[in-house]
Amino acid sequence: MTARFKFDISATDGAARTGVIHMQRGDIRTPAFMPVGTAGTVKAMLPENVRSTGADILLGNTYHLMLRPTAERIDRLGGLHKFMNWDRPILTDSGGFQVMSLTELRKMSEQGVEFRSHLDGTKIMLTPERSMEIQRLLGTDIVMSFDECTPFPATEDVAKDSMELSMRWAQRSRDGFDSGADHAARAALFGIVQGGVYEDLRFRSIDALTEIGFDGYAVGGLAVGEGQEMMFKVLDFTMPRMPEGAPRYLMGVGKPDDIVGAVERGIDMFDCVMPTRSGRTGQGFTRFGPVNMRNARHKDDERPIDADCACPACTQYSRAYVHHLIKAGEILGAMLLTWHNLQFYQDLMTGLRSAIAEGNLARFSGEFRTNYARGDIDAL
Amino acid sequence: MTARFKFDISATDGAARTGVIHMQRGDIRTPAFMPVGTAGTVKAMLPENVRSTGADILLGNTYHLMLRPTAERIDRLGGLHKFMNWDRPILTDSGGFQVMSLTELRKMSEQGVEFRSHLDGTKIMLTPERSMEIQRLLGTDIVMSFDECTPFPATEDVAKDSMELSMRWAQRSRDGFDSGADHAARAALFGIVQGGVYEDLRFRSIDALTEIGFDGYAVGGLAVGEGQEMMFKVLDFTMPRMPEGAPRYLMGVGKPDDIVGAVERGIDMFDCVMPTRSGRTGQGFTRFGPVNMRNARHKDDERPIDADCACPACTQYSRAYVHHLIKAGEILGAMLLTWHNLQFYQDLMTGLRSAIAEGNLARFSGEFRTNYARGDIDAL
Repeated sequence: MTARFKFDISATDGAARTGVIHMQRGDIRTPAFMPVGTAGTVKAMLPENVRSTGADILLGNTYHLMLRPTAERIDRLGGLHKFMNWDRPILTDSGGFQVMSLTELRKMSEQGVEFRSHLDGTKIMLTPERSMEIQRLLGTDIVMSFDECTPFPATEDVAKDSMELSMRWAQRSRDGFDSGADHAARAALFGIVQGGVYEDLRFRSIDALTEIGFDGYAVGGLAVGEGQEMMFKVLDFTMPRMPEGAPRYLMGVGKPDDIVGAVERGIDMFDCVMPTRSGRTGQGFTRFGPVNMRNARHKDDERPIDADCACPACTQYSRAYVHHLIKAGEILGAMLLTWHNLQFYQDLMTGLRSAIAEGNLARFSGEFRTNYARGDIDAL
Repeated sequence: MTARFKFDISATDGAARTGVIHMQRGDIRTPAFMPVGTAGTVKAMLPENVRSTGADILLGNTYHLMLRPTAERIDRLGGLHKFMNWDRPILTDSGGFQVMSLTELRKMSEQGVEFRSHLDGTKIMLTPERSMEIQRLLGTDIVMSFDECTPFPATEDVAKDSMELSMRWAQRSRDGFDSGADHAARAALFGIVQGGVYEDLRFRSIDALTEIGFDGYAVGGLAVGEGQEMMFKVLDFTMPRMPEGAPRYLMGVGKPDDIVGAVERGIDMFDCVMPTRSGRTGQGFTRFGPVNMRNARHKDDERPIDADCACPACTQYSRAYVHHLIKAGEILGAMLLTWHNLQFYQDLMTGLRSAIAEGNLARFSGEFRTNYARGDIDAL
């Protein structure tokens, strides 16, 4: 029988690690990038094509799914995997972050967060226990604890109170998760380190979580406006304190160079809407930096976006065509550019994994940063 | 060497025919349905997936392409086939119909139509000669003559003047097409029968066109608000007068039952935005009638839209999932439902071709109409 959850680190290079998380629905190669499938779909992509880019795991949003089509309905329909036709692992967030960022009239208490649905105004209470129940109904493979994402900036007092609340919720998440024995026998639960930009608070959060015990540990409360320099600074003091044998997940990150820097600091998992959202607004990613496909310079350009890329946008179409589609507001433009961006992100992860395995991450990262900063698509 | 244009009728059943149009870029099985690729893309579809539904030929819109990205640009980029990654035949309309329906401030004259671009207000003159030049620059396989689509309703006098203008333009189209010898050696030119609902005018139009001589003959000026009964009435008197050995194309038609009735009357080719446009607005086609996937009745329905359909929407997803995507405004909803609708239309054409070949079109059509009128998706 396949392990419920097993993380094998096969190589390290400095603080960076590469390996495989084994789960019943499939292996997850790390460092891993998880495309975001907010409402039960990675926007503008068929799931088999997401898989073909190299994705081992998707992220789903509890907040969106609980409101529509609802967790109970997805459960009745056989779970999220069957619903959206993805049979590999799925990680879901707890809903906490999006309740705070997407709703109004919300009321926080020790118990949880009360808010009104942005769809129909219904009053809803989200608690650690309810978040665990929803993620169980969805059939999630990696469940995230319910926490409060501490805003930035926050004073040390505010960050402390917020972190301590999240740690009490982490315990309630653990208890709630464990109470669903059938699901707990197949799924994993991750804790989320909070504490803002304060070293002491981050350490206390890590200690509290490891005391409870989780399958993996996420770093929360970053990529919320603090900037790359501050984010790396927080990782610099946080990562050495994290449990070594468990996966480390940097939530909501990020730009390609954010990912490279975070991998160098020991992060194993990432998720971000950037490749998919950018794909719908005309931004493409390349190893020579992001490129705005709306720009008139592409009008007559017969070359592919990147001749080295294996995605259909690059193997079958010109920059001129992608430019035309984006300018004309054609759905195919969003489809092709999303596909390209997901391929770019997965290729970056493949490159990082190989570099770590071969012990040359510093050279890989240095070259990546130099190229990426050029911002010169004509060099492709 | 493959023929430039050769129409082999392999079987007839009443007025209906089935066969193959041979062209250098590939065979077109008739009766054929041509998906519409307005602006160089069949909306929300990759071309290989359009092909997989059974499409042998696409339609492109001269009006849209001439404005953006422009015919000259497409020519510089290697032609429309390369631009949009479709190597099989493409038919383009002449631009005349859309100039009249989509632009304001247009001015008709014997010379052609002057209008302002809806994109940037540029003043543009479209003439038979320019339409031929544009379609040549696009690299079109089947070129449509430049005509005026007589509005409905129109008095006999108005319809007569309009038809006679179109016939003069047909001759200029023929001359313009023939002047591009390289293109004319590979491509085909179709004339368009006009004359409104008036038998005598239709006959005179057919006589004028056959006198000029074309590879195929389209019936224009229908599906413009006259209703199915009137459309069939016009076909009833028009079709017996059409040249037998050439393909007959009913432009802009139509609903599935329009197509069945027109095939029974001897039409060989169709195009319509209905399957693609409906796919983006939540309407699916089934053999038991159209179904509105936005309807709440599908919320908990685990069944596919049609268990007998080979499209991915039906083989991999539930009605509940497609409903969810459409309600949530997800691009994947448009992708899946467009795919399903194109598959439905091509399956209908396959069924019609087989029925004609087997000599049981009357039974096939009767059953189709009975089922389609039920409008009961629960029977699927």
